[in-house]
Amino acid sequence: MALLGIDIGGTKIAFAVFDNAGNLISVESVPLSGRGGKEASRLVTDGIDSLLSRHERSVHRIEAIGVSVPGIYHTGIDTVWVPNIKGWVDYPLPDQIKKVSGEIPVVLDSDRACSIMGEMWKGGSAGVRNAVFITVGTGIGAGILVNGEILRGADDIAGAVGWMALESNFEDEFRQCGCFEYNASGKGIAKIAAAKVSVSADYKGSLKKIPGKDMTANDVIRAFEKKDPVAIPIIRSSISAWGKAAANLISIFNPEKIIFGGGVFGPAEKFLPEIREEAAKWAQPLSFKRVTFETPVLGPDAAVYGAAFLALKKNGRKK
Amino acid sequence: MALLGIDIGGTKIAFAVFDNAGNLISVESVPLSGRGGKEASRLVTDGIDSLLSRHERSVHRIEAIGVSVPGIYHTGIDTVWVPNIKGWVDYPLPDQIKKVSGEIPVVLDSDRACSIMGEMWKGGSAGVRNAVFITVGTGIGAGILVNGEILRGADDIAGAVGWMALESNFEDEFRQCGCFEYNASGKGIAKIAAAKVSVSADYKGSLKKIPGKDMTANDVIRAFEKKDPVAIPIIRSSISAWGKAAANLISIFNPEKIIFGGGVFGPAEKFLPEIREEAAKWAQPLSFKRVTFETPVLGPDAAVYGAAFLALKKNGRKK
Repeated sequence: MALLGIDIGGTKIAFAVFDNAGNLISVESVPLSGRGGKEASRLVTDGIDSLLSRHERSVHRIEAIGVSVPGIYHTGIDTVWVPNIKGWVDYPLPDQIKKVSGEIPVVLDSDRACSIMGEMWKGGSAGVRNAVFITVGTGIGAGILVNGEILRGADDIAGAVGWMALESNFEDEFRQCGCFEYNASGKGIAKIAAAKVSVSADYKGSLKKIPGKDMTANDVIRAFEKKDPVAIPIIRSSISAWGKAAANLISIFNPEKIIFGGGVFGPAEKFLPEIREEAAKWAQPLSFKRVTFETPVLGPDAAVYGAAFLALKKNGRKK
Repeated sequence: MALLGIDIGGTKIAFAVFDNAGNLISVESVPLSGRGGKEASRLVTDGIDSLLSRHERSVHRIEAIGVSVPGIYHTGIDTVWVPNIKGWVDYPLPDQIKKVSGEIPVVLDSDRACSIMGEMWKGGSAGVRNAVFITVGTGIGAGILVNGEILRGADDIAGAVGWMALESNFEDEFRQCGCFEYNASGKGIAKIAAAKVSVSADYKGSLKKIPGKDMTANDVIRAFEKKDPVAIPIIRSSISAWGKAAANLISIFNPEKIIFGGGVFGPAEKFLPEIREEAAKWAQPLSFKRVTFETPVLGPDAAVYGAAFLALKKNGRKK
C-alpha cells in the first residue's frame, strides 16, 4: 500500500507517493499559473484522480491522502483559507477532494503543521516531542509541536508568529502583516531594501540595478556578503529579529529544537550561528541551553512528507 | 470524601480542604517566616499530617493531595526548584510528602499551572481549552492551557514569559530576569521607580517619602493615579509591555482567554482596557477578535483551587 502527499504551494502543486515507511516512490508537480477558485481545486482533484487510477492495481495502491495548504485549514467547518490563491476564502476544498477520493481517508493541514510533521517523520526530528519550525518565506509563520501534537489554538490559527511584537515602538507599517514579518520576512527584507535604494541618491551598489518590484531577500543577502552599505543594516536587523523571535519561542515553549525553514533559509542558513548568539542574550537561560538551532533536513520537501505522514496517522487511527 | 489543596507561597503556606465538587470546607495557613530547606518542608508535612488525622473518621476523609509550588516541579526527576525558598534547588519535596501521605495520591505542579487549573475548575474559565494566565507578581510567568492540558515543554519550564524580548535593543539589566520581567513585574516597576527617584534632585512627589528598598509596584500605581511625574512614564511603559506580551501570546496560541493575575493585578486591574488597546495594535487580528481579557475570578486563591483540582484529576485516573 501507499500514501499520497500533496503540497499546494503558492506557484505549484506537488504530488508525492510514498510507501508506509516514508520511502518516496514518485513525485510530480503541476504549475498553478495564477489559477484560483474551482480551477485551482480541479488541478488538485485531477491529480488525485489520475494517481489513484494509475496505482489502483499496483502494490502501491494509495490508501490515504494528506494535503498541505499554504494558509489555514479550519478543522471545525472543514474549509481552507489561502490568501495567495484567489477565491480560497473559507473554501470547501475537502468536499471537492472527497468527490474523487471516495472511501479513501483524506486529511488536510497548514503547510506550517505539515512541515514540522515531515521533519518529525523523515527529517532530523524523529522522536522529538517539543519543537518550533519557523517558516520564513514571503511571510512568516510557525508550526509548533507541543508534546508530539500540533498546536492549533481555538480556531486553528495558532503559530502566527509573524505578528510578534519585537520592537519598542509600534509603526504603521506593522499593521498589515505584523512587526516580525515586516522586518524579517522575504517580502519585508526586499521591500525595505527597495525603499532604501530608491531614496539613497548617492548609493551606487549592486541593488541599484534591480528594479524595486523584482528585488528579493536573496538579492539583499548577496549584497550583504559584498558589504553593501544598504544591505548591511537591513540584514543585521533581520538577524536580530530572527534571534529575538527564536528567544521568545524558546522561553515560552522550552522546546528541543528551533528549526528555521522556508525560502529565505535557504540563503540565510549561514546566519544561524549569529541568530543563536542573539537569542542567547534574550532567552530563559535553562531553556536556551537545552535547545538546538537547525535548518530542515528535508528542505522545501518537508511539507509534502508531512502531508503523507498525517495521512498515515489518520489511516492508522481508522483501523 | 475530600481533597487537600496546598499553596506554598513566598511568605506562607495555605492548606484548603474541598469536597469533590470544589466547595471549600476549611482553609488555614502557616507563615514561612524565612524558613527554608527541611524546616520549610516540615511545615508542609506537619500540616498534611494534622489535616489527615483530623479528617480521618469524618465524611470529608482526604483522598488526594495537590501541591502548588512557587517555582518549577520537575516531573521526570520528581523534585522542585523554588528560588525564593532557601535550599529548594532540585529538592525532593515529593519524597518528604510521601512519608506522611502514605497511600494517598499526591500531585505537585507550579503555581502557574495550578492557577490556570483553578480558574478552569471553579473560576471564570470552565470549559475553556486554550488560555494563558499571566502571573505578574515579584516576577512574571505564565500558565498556558493548550487543548485542555498544561504546556510543560521538554523540561517542565515552558511559560517563562518574563524572558520575552519586547524591546528594540538589549540592555544589560535584562540579563538576570528577562526584558519583560525587568520592565513590568512588581519588582521591576518598584526598582525602576526607586532608581529614578534617587537621581531626580528636583522631584518632590509622594514616592520621595518611601525608602527605595520599601518601594512597591502598588506605591508607583497609586502615584501614577495622582499624576506623579516619576510614576507616569514607568506605568505607561508597563502598560505597553503588558499589551505587547499579551499580543504575542495571542498571535502564538490563538487562545480564548488572556488572564492577568498575581499581586500586581490587583491594583493594575484598572489598566486592562488600555492593555487590550495596546495588544490590539500588535496581535494577529483574527486571534485578537476571538480573545477576551480578564482577571482571575478566584483572585489569589486560584492556585490552591488548582492544586485541589489536580488532586481530583489524579485520583480519578487512579480509579
